[in-house]
Amino acid sequence: MAENRVGQTVILKSPPSIISGGCIAGPMEAQGPLGGYFDLTVEDDRIGEKTWEKAESRLQRETLAIALAKAGLTVNDLDYLFAGDLLAQCIGSSFGMRDTNVPYFGLYGACSTMAEALGLAAMTLSAGYADIVAAVTSSHFCTAERQFRQPLEYGGQRTPTSQWTVTGSGALILSSLKGYPSVDSVTCGKIVDLGIRDANNMGAAMAPAAFDTISAHLRDIGVKPDYYDLIVTGDLGTVGSRLMHELFKRSGTDISTNHFDCGASVFSHDVQDTHAGGSGCGCCASVLSGYLLHGLRTGKWRRILFCATGALMSAVSSQQGESIPGICTAISITGREV
Amino acid sequence: MAENRVGQTVILKSPPSIISGGCIAGPMEAQGPLGGYFDLTVEDDRIGEKTWEKAESRLQRETLAIALAKAGLTVNDLDYLFAGDLLAQCIGSSFGMRDTNVPYFGLYGACSTMAEALGLAAMTLSAGYADIVAAVTSSHFCTAERQFRQPLEYGGQRTPTSQWTVTGSGALILSSLKGYPSVDSVTCGKIVDLGIRDANNMGAAMAPAAFDTISAHLRDIGVKPDYYDLIVTGDLGTVGSRLMHELFKRSGTDISTNHFDCGASVFSHDVQDTHAGGSGCGCCASVLSGYLLHGLRTGKWRRILFCATGALMSAVSSQQGESIPGICTAISITGREV
Repeated sequence: MAENRVGQTVILKSPPSIISGGCIAGPMEAQGPLGGYFDLTVEDDRIGEKTWEKAESRLQRETLAIALAKAGLTVNDLDYLFAGDLLAQCIGSSFGMRDTNVPYFGLYGACSTMAEALGLAAMTLSAGYADIVAAVTSSHFCTAERQFRQPLEYGGQRTPTSQWTVTGSGALILSSLKGYPSVDSVTCGKIVDLGIRDANNMGAAMAPAAFDTISAHLRDIGVKPDYYDLIVTGDLGTVGSRLMHELFKRSGTDISTNHFDCGASVFSHDVQDTHAGGSGCGCCASVLSGYLLHGLRTGKWRRILFCATGALMSAVSSQQGESIPGICTAISITGREV
Repeated sequence: MAENRVGQTVILKSPPSIISGGCIAGPMEAQGPLGGYFDLTVEDDRIGEKTWEKAESRLQRETLAIALAKAGLTVNDLDYLFAGDLLAQCIGSSFGMRDTNVPYFGLYGACSTMAEALGLAAMTLSAGYADIVAAVTSSHFCTAERQFRQPLEYGGQRTPTSQWTVTGSGALILSSLKGYPSVDSVTCGKIVDLGIRDANNMGAAMAPAAFDTISAHLRDIGVKPDYYDLIVTGDLGTVGSRLMHELFKRSGTDISTNHFDCGASVFSHDVQDTHAGGSGCGCCASVLSGYLLHGLRTGKWRRILFCATGALMSAVSSQQGESIPGICTAISITGREV
């Protein structure tokens, strides 16, 4: 058995530290309950760019710049960039990171990409392959909706299970030096597909993957859910969160008391017309880099398990009648010396 | 400085071994000069599936099965899958690998994805995070052409610089145990964009990235090009290869004598109407897993540098007038004990 692995989980012998985080979000997210935790919120979806896609690339670029500035670093200090987004051929990242001159690993894990990026980044640092790296992801309501569903101009009625793609980006700078918050383990997820076909019910498609990965992680580490002060999922939304609670309940575990879903928390359900909650690569990335990082630093939570969830489908796969494969990757983060 | 890194290059302290490779290609590729090196060639682009996209997923699935069978393994032996393809949201891989039940890292490096997958796979093994992993990529002429360029039915005239997307898939199984061929170092590429805007001239867009990464690798390792019996690029094609030779010539290095481009070699220029050569994630993946692996094992080459090249654009970015960012990641492979 590989020396740094237990079951499905990699235990990092030299846990890297998260030295800074940056996050930018859009106008809808600014009005949500976590609005005060973003470093910057933009009023205009285009951010002065000609197209939404160019705006999303700019989101990533400026989010990385914020995270680097907070750490007192520049792009020249980065050994690697781990980046991804939801767009076809991941152009949010490739164009956003184009001018950095930093070795680049492009990733696609749908809305789970931030956990994939953070996991590979931490694994790379702990192995002595790099000193300082960044993990960056983004999503944008306008680029995602028109790509995965309908032209925005169509103004289609949204179903109650549908989620609202977050316009936002999150970036974390990690160092191989010991420090806190630290990244301690990585449980890479398997693809789980229980046959959900409704592209407006991503929560249901991703909930079984979240259940699968979180269960594997707890089993591998040998702990109960309350070992973590917070078990964070990415964007199950309200519908997917209920389904995941139900799956855990059936296996004899109550996870609802310390579960937090970024998608279900980023908007105000009563006031904002966002149905089952937020979604997108930028949702849990911006919540992690802002709200969660703040709570880890201030001692609100000592240990969290960050489990980003993704739906690995495309408009084409849906049109061809395919079901929606889900995935979830879990990263354990310790806020302060325990 | 990170202990296992020199400049831009990771030196693997415990070089993993490539224990088997599998490759499947389409009818055009079967007729090319490397046709005899594929494990299987299919006569029908659909491989009996309803859509080309489903066919591409099947290509990946069956290629992985061939590679596993050769190693006497099953998917249950795999700790990780590193996979990617050219399709929007990488559905070739997510649907192809859906039923494996193996922790999955989805990657997007355009046509450079096989080097990205192989690099991360080898880094993961050398660090003791896994025992056995697979790297798989694919491309398909019909899925790619209609996504990046025009509907196939349109029958558009192809320009002389255009390349023909290879229908094919390659899979490598790697082990953390010492053996040959071994993966010795990984030079992850930076995004390089010199402003090429012609989506029918990918070779020109990728050549500067290949020059950049290969130069960095040779500098980091401290060797001249003839240290390698073969410097392999992915799919520069004939046009991109000439441009890369020119870039090296200007820097005082002749790389043309031991350079081999998979794209320029996979089709017969005189007979097959493929213009500047082959391209796609499956091009260098299937050539590496077949022809190159064979040559490494039989002692034809002792050391090769495998440099897959990618163009990180999409149909949307081209329509929005963007230039084409290129990337190239280089992996050094030793065929036999030196």
